[in-house]
Amino acid sequence: MSQGSTATGAVLTAADSVAYLGPQGTFTEVAMRAMPSVGDAQAVPMTSVDAVLDAVRRGDVAAGVVPIENSLEGPVTTTLDALARRDSQLVITQEWAIPVRFSLLVRPGVSLSEIRQVASIPIAAAQCRGWLSENLPDAHVLAALSTASAAQRLGTENPPPYDAAISPAVAAQHYGLEVLADDIGDNSAASTRFVQVRRPGPPPPRTGADKTTLMLFMREDHAGALMEILTEFAVRGVNLTNIESRPTRKQLGDYYFAIDCEGHVADARVGEALTGLRRVCAEVRYLGSYPRHDGKQPHARPGTADEDFANAAAWLAQIRSGA
Amino acid sequence: MSQGSTATGAVLTAADSVAYLGPQGTFTEVAMRAMPSVGDAQAVPMTSVDAVLDAVRRGDVAAGVVPIENSLEGPVTTTLDALARRDSQLVITQEWAIPVRFSLLVRPGVSLSEIRQVASIPIAAAQCRGWLSENLPDAHVLAALSTASAAQRLGTENPPPYDAAISPAVAAQHYGLEVLADDIGDNSAASTRFVQVRRPGPPPPRTGADKTTLMLFMREDHAGALMEILTEFAVRGVNLTNIESRPTRKQLGDYYFAIDCEGHVADARVGEALTGLRRVCAEVRYLGSYPRHDGKQPHARPGTADEDFANAAAWLAQIRSGA
Amino acid sequence: MSQGSTATGAVLTAADSVAYLGPQGTFTEVAMRAMPSVGDAQAVPMTSVDAVLDAVRRGDVAAGVVPIENSLEGPVTTTLDALARRDSQLVITQEWAIPVRFSLLVRPGVSLSEIRQVASIPIAAAQCRGWLSENLPDAHVLAALSTASAAQRLGTENPPPYDAAISPAVAAQHYGLEVLADDIGDNSAASTRFVQVRRPGPPPPRTGADKTTLMLFMREDHAGALMEILTEFAVRGVNLTNIESRPTRKQLGDYYFAIDCEGHVADARVGEALTGLRRVCAEVRYLGSYPRHDGKQPHARPGTADEDFANAAAWLAQIRSGA
Amino acid sequence: MSQGSTATGAVLTAADSVAYLGPQGTFTEVAMRAMPSVGDAQAVPMTSVDAVLDAVRRGDVAAGVVPIENSLEGPVTTTLDALARRDSQLVITQEWAIPVRFSLLVRPGVSLSEIRQVASIPIAAAQCRGWLSENLPDAHVLAALSTASAAQRLGTENPPPYDAAISPAVAAQHYGLEVLADDIGDNSAASTRFVQVRRPGPPPPRTGADKTTLMLFMREDHAGALMEILTEFAVRGVNLTNIESRPTRKQLGDYYFAIDCEGHVADARVGEALTGLRRVCAEVRYLGSYPRHDGKQPHARPGTADEDFANAAAWLAQIRSGA
Repeated sequence: MSQGSTATGAVLTAADSVAYLGPQGTFTEVAMRAMPSVGDAQAVPMTSVDAVLDAVRRGDVAAGVVPIENSLEGPVTTTLDALARRDSQLVITQEWAIPVRFSLLVRPGVSLSEIRQVASIPIAAAQCRGWLSENLPDAHVLAALSTASAAQRLGTENPPPYDAAISPAVAAQHYGLEVLADDIGDNSAASTRFVQVRRPGPPPPRTGADKTTLMLFMREDHAGALMEILTEFAVRGVNLTNIESRPTRKQLGDYYFAIDCEGHVADARVGEALTGLRRVCAEVRYLGSYPRHDGKQPHARPGTADEDFANAAAWLAQIRSGA
Repeated sequence: MSQGSTATGAVLTAADSVAYLGPQGTFTEVAMRAMPSVGDAQAVPMTSVDAVLDAVRRGDVAAGVVPIENSLEGPVTTTLDALARRDSQLVITQEWAIPVRFSLLVRPGVSLSEIRQVASIPIAAAQCRGWLSENLPDAHVLAALSTASAAQRLGTENPPPYDAAISPAVAAQHYGLEVLADDIGDNSAASTRFVQVRRPGPPPPRTGADKTTLMLFMREDHAGALMEILTEFAVRGVNLTNIESRPTRKQLGDYYFAIDCEGHVADARVGEALTGLRRVCAEVRYLGSYPRHDGKQPHARPGTADEDFANAAAWLAQIRSGA
Repeated sequence: MSQGSTATGAVLTAADSVAYLGPQGTFTEVAMRAMPSVGDAQAVPMTSVDAVLDAVRRGDVAAGVVPIENSLEGPVTTTLDALARRDSQLVITQEWAIPVRFSLLVRPGVSLSEIRQVASIPIAAAQCRGWLSENLPDAHVLAALSTASAAQRLGTENPPPYDAAISPAVAAQHYGLEVLADDIGDNSAASTRFVQVRRPGPPPPRTGADKTTLMLFMREDHAGALMEILTEFAVRGVNLTNIESRPTRKQLGDYYFAIDCEGHVADARVGEALTGLRRVCAEVRYLGSYPRHDGKQPHARPGTADEDFANAAAWLAQIRSGA
Repeated sequence: MSQGSTATGAVLTAADSVAYLGPQGTFTEVAMRAMPSVGDAQAVPMTSVDAVLDAVRRGDVAAGVVPIENSLEGPVTTTLDALARRDSQLVITQEWAIPVRFSLLVRPGVSLSEIRQVASIPIAAAQCRGWLSENLPDAHVLAALSTASAAQRLGTENPPPYDAAISPAVAAQHYGLEVLADDIGDNSAASTRFVQVRRPGPPPPRTGADKTTLMLFMREDHAGALMEILTEFAVRGVNLTNIESRPTRKQLGDYYFAIDCEGHVADARVGEALTGLRRVCAEVRYLGSYPRHDGKQPHARPGTADEDFANAAAWLAQIRSGA
């Protein structure tokens, strides 16, 4: 299979496959289809984040799409921890964010008064609590593996295991359901971020509005460790956009840091920060540079452009030679 | 009801109630029963983290116990975000960690070869993947709201909705089940941390091995914000044990920091750090000081004991008066 | 003698004496006479910085005026080191800066062509090198103890020991000399800063544009010591205006830091910074708070006003009490 | 003349000349003769620090030796400011420290009871105050341009202009004088540091115990400027051994920092720190890398050796290529 040689940022073709956290109708599918680099690739739903990532690692697919932040379809931490694994060997090549908009799906013809049981993932149910308590105060909420699987079982099992599903509206058409109520979430501004991962290769080219994801493992749990890490970024003018301390699973209290920073690994300031981190951390796992979903340009501090680094290096060479 | 006046660290009595994330048989129940300050209180299982917290806020119960880190029974983030809410008004008064040990529960007499469907929460299933693929390669995994609810439905519904549940062993006795296999998790060192929350009041007394939890909301998303925050701790010799950046839910990219630090709010160094944070953050939510579950003493830097602060204050007063 | 009880910032009266680095006609005298708090005090010239400081310590005079920065009449370091001595016990109560303007003084009737020998202190001669090489290329420069003493000996000894003195113009009238050339320095923007010192007492009241001088002795010569010190200032929003590392005279490489910072010891942010320094340094010597000579208001960071500190303290008290 | 091509660290030969702050018999001469790289060079005394430096700049001599720290023969600041000048173009190639030991020199046969007038530089007189007040309480102290010039005039002028000179003992043999009392300073541990300067060229080779001197000019006088500078050093594990803030002479309050740090410009950590400074400062003046006078090895933090930098750079190259 030729997919192993695909450059990490390249637009996929109809000859490629892309796995995603399914089943059909998830927010992940919505995000995947919106990603420019997915192109005409064939979409393959999978049942878990791990299944998606494994398919990419094995080379069964050219890329995989999974939720990574504020996810409603599985905790972010599953994705972070899976990507942080020593043997993960995957890089992020694109991110995408979509607004989260829940709908109440039913079999055609079912009315609100007939609904006794509603299925969804617990978090989705929690985010629709206001609407549910007002419109379905007596309904019982059942657990599902994902929002889309709640729709899937409702549409495909006979008899249906429950009366309604909280799900993205797009799932209705996949499973022959109707949207009985739309946008029923309490917080209409919620959004979720998804990432596309591939096997390692040259990063996508710089766009000027890029992001780089790193996993930093500490040498020991000393007090100043986080300050030390942040200073490595700050001194080169690299801003962070996200930071999580995550247990390494060896024992409670042993942490790694999952960090997103502004800029591309090809940027001089990001590169020098990475070498600095490499020198102070027990391990630095590079998870890829890729365009920001919001296209936001970094506010680079004066003196941190590639040209500034090049000028300083030329000056140093001159001093060292005594010329 | 007299429960509103209970001092936050006081040991509860048989006249008090404590809510916990149920149903009966969860790891949360195991942790709750191990907490010294729960005493003889009557345990009340609830169906969600939010339900537990609401019961405490309303004063229906004196305290509540919920998972907060590396949880298998609901994402940590649910608890963090619920406690970070502007109107939350709860404080943590105790933490407890227990090893996570999964068992495979069945109805009495059921053998391994009869199992077609296994229920659990997705994360628990993921952590037992090794055992499952070896011993039940063909079984289908169903979603449950919690590990204990998987056991509960198996023991109480007729006919049982599936053949086995991945659950804490303790759930077996609650629901008349048998432990068919014990300690089936892939990572036997996993542990989970739980917290007990109460309505605000005087904090539990200092033990010398305490922890303080804070939620820090930034004035704006400027690059140096996190460095600024960490410096407020570091300059007073206060070590952090955990940090999470969490979206405020207004939009992706707006964060608050959930932070655990060593020490008690009554410690001079912690108190001064808190006032410093109060001056640089848009808002500081204090979520309580309480004994560390591991009893680990902080490595306080020289010059940061209460006595050092008192001496310095006396010296300053003398300088200011010109005496 | 009533001078011991004079409040440190009080305006002196005709009943008080103020010592200064003489003899009559030095830049120090010019600065002393310009200081508002000197009032009508009787001026007493002394022959060295040490003599001035000793007179103040003994209570022979109410105050003393000496150069402290970019001095032409004795190295700054003499003053700094004298004030840093463990037994110094003096505080700065006022600073003043004056432009440095050199003149060539001669006995009445002497013309340029008659000048063979010019006396001054080496630094003053160096700063007038341009004028001298153009106008007196063949003259020999002799060393004097101070610019004014060069004038004094020229006016009072018979026969005069040399033909001309480089000196402040004001010295001419003291010693019966004439100004043959004015403003002969190469750098007309040069200025010198002087301080008035008194025995300890309540500091002068806050003006909103104040400065505080400190001597900080390190516990040991570890690498991060200076960073640590600067952080204590920075975290409370206190800006530095000057810093010198000075040997402690025990051995080369053992340093103390002489630091000027913005603000008054009565300011909450300065007070807290001082207590922080007191906790991390081997010793903090407080050398006084006093109005800035340039009246420049500090650019205080938001959150560092007295009110912000008071609000944060009130909030902390509330948290600690659990109210 | 071939002296322009001398490598900066090379040992001079009898064909070379080295200028020093004279006259004969100064502590500077003592230090110069002790410096290994001076070799058999011909020593040329000069009358001022500026004269020494100018002679080196012009190529009249191969090297110059001047005092730079805690000097008794002219303020340190003279040397620092002269080396900081934009057009200075000199580098330090060696430093040397010697104990400061004052003697009282007289013409042969003169006894203590005959001494009425003693000449020296004011600082030397100040440091011998204890001995003078005990042994020559009534003697008058006269100013000299340097300790050695005090001896020179005493030995060479007729009649002698005063009765005794405070001077290094070595000056006695130069000017036909006798040492009447030795080691008369109050602080017998005092020492002074001297530097040898040459025109720019390849720095002396690394010894493993080196020092680098820099002059850092700030872009503007903002509060955090010094923190910023120190962080550039700290993040690469480069320790400072000295720091002075010096006015730029444009106006009071405009500063540059004269900094000595551990390590050699050829060290990876020093090189990267220099490029970082170059990017944040308005100007960085490199004043040379040279062996420490005390041979003290730096305590380099783990991860800051040349090998660590090389490994990190190789790792970055691999990431960037996607290999």
